[in-house]
Amino acid sequence: MKKISESAVRRLSLYLRFLQEAAATGAETISSGELARRGGTTSAQVRKDLSLFGSFGKRGMGYSVRELLREIRSILGLTRPWHVAVVGAGRLGSALSSFRDFEARGFDIRAVFDADPAKIGQSWGGLTVLPDEAMDRTLREQNVDIAIVAVPAEAAQGVVDRVVAAGVRAVLNFAPARLRVPRGVTLRNVDVTLELEGLSFALVNGKA
Amino acid sequence: MKKISESAVRRLSLYLRFLQEAAATGAETISSGELARRGGTTSAQVRKDLSLFGSFGKRGMGYSVRELLREIRSILGLTRPWHVAVVGAGRLGSALSSFRDFEARGFDIRAVFDADPAKIGQSWGGLTVLPDEAMDRTLREQNVDIAIVAVPAEAAQGVVDRVVAAGVRAVLNFAPARLRVPRGVTLRNVDVTLELEGLSFALVNGKA
Repeated sequence: MKKISESAVRRLSLYLRFLQEAAATGAETISSGELARRGGTTSAQVRKDLSLFGSFGKRGMGYSVRELLREIRSILGLTRPWHVAVVGAGRLGSALSSFRDFEARGFDIRAVFDADPAKIGQSWGGLTVLPDEAMDRTLREQNVDIAIVAVPAEAAQGVVDRVVAAGVRAVLNFAPARLRVPRGVTLRNVDVTLELEGLSFALVNGKA
Repeated sequence: MKKISESAVRRLSLYLRFLQEAAATGAETISSGELARRGGTTSAQVRKDLSLFGSFGKRGMGYSVRELLREIRSILGLTRPWHVAVVGAGRLGSALSSFRDFEARGFDIRAVFDADPAKIGQSWGGLTVLPDEAMDRTLREQNVDIAIVAVPAEAAQGVVDRVVAAGVRAVLNFAPARLRVPRGVTLRNVDVTLELEGLSFALVNGKA
């Protein structure tokens, strides 16, 4: 497969949602124009994105919703559930652990950890907050694929080092810190302050 | 000023943090190499980013930390505080409202809104959760610049339409929905499921 940019992967996720919505309304086909309009891009971009993976559409007929759904799910690795652990049981960790959307989309939260004795043992929607000491063993036992890091900035690198040592190969970091991961481990950062600063820039520079 | 890409603005935010950390340790100068190393980019990229705004560094001397801090803060519009409102007082809204980092970085949360009578009137760190009906008036009275949308997907477009009608020109959306804003309003989306799907893609495609 050709190298695919992060932004192309992002668009595939969006197409997947539109396809799921289309499927829910009973639609059997969808045009590149419709996918483009909803994804805020062009038909040419949609066709280019989808052509990376082979040829799905028939000219003038649009894409089969069912077929395209199956293909994109397969490309994105969503044909199997992923095991997720949340490290940090503060407000953010709590919010993330309760996202109904995650499980519906195949991200199954298997464990929540915290270092704070006041939080350990609390029950969160079927999960019990576990102490940090249980992390290594639990991550392995639960075959955790993805760790969500929701701890303070100063603790984040230590957490990442531990989850990586326990075999986790994908990390979604919410701590406002630049983290290092070894080769073979994928790190994504969600940095809300940075997004706000982007908005600030747009406000003063009149860019929308 | 030349057109600046979203990713360049993102890097400026990161440079700003490194400069603040450098200033905190008493450093007076910083090299493009140091900024590059910490930002995961190249010295050439750093020099290019900073040259967009004029000439700060002296060859072989590095950049003045104080001067560069001041310039980047000015470029990003961070020389004044921004007024922020959070719409949606669920777990995520609660987590966002309590981020200490926001106020420290000039994003001052002035109001929190919710439609749920059980949440209205609750006190959150000096703020009282206000009913939706108070939104229009409060956004204007508090001169809110930025709205953070933390409501369910199906309610998000309605909220955006209301805050925009009340004069808000920047929106940070956490709802898993594609929203429309009129020209002149900037929208950024933080979509956690999409980030997880990007990690899923990386896990199955061996891309790190």
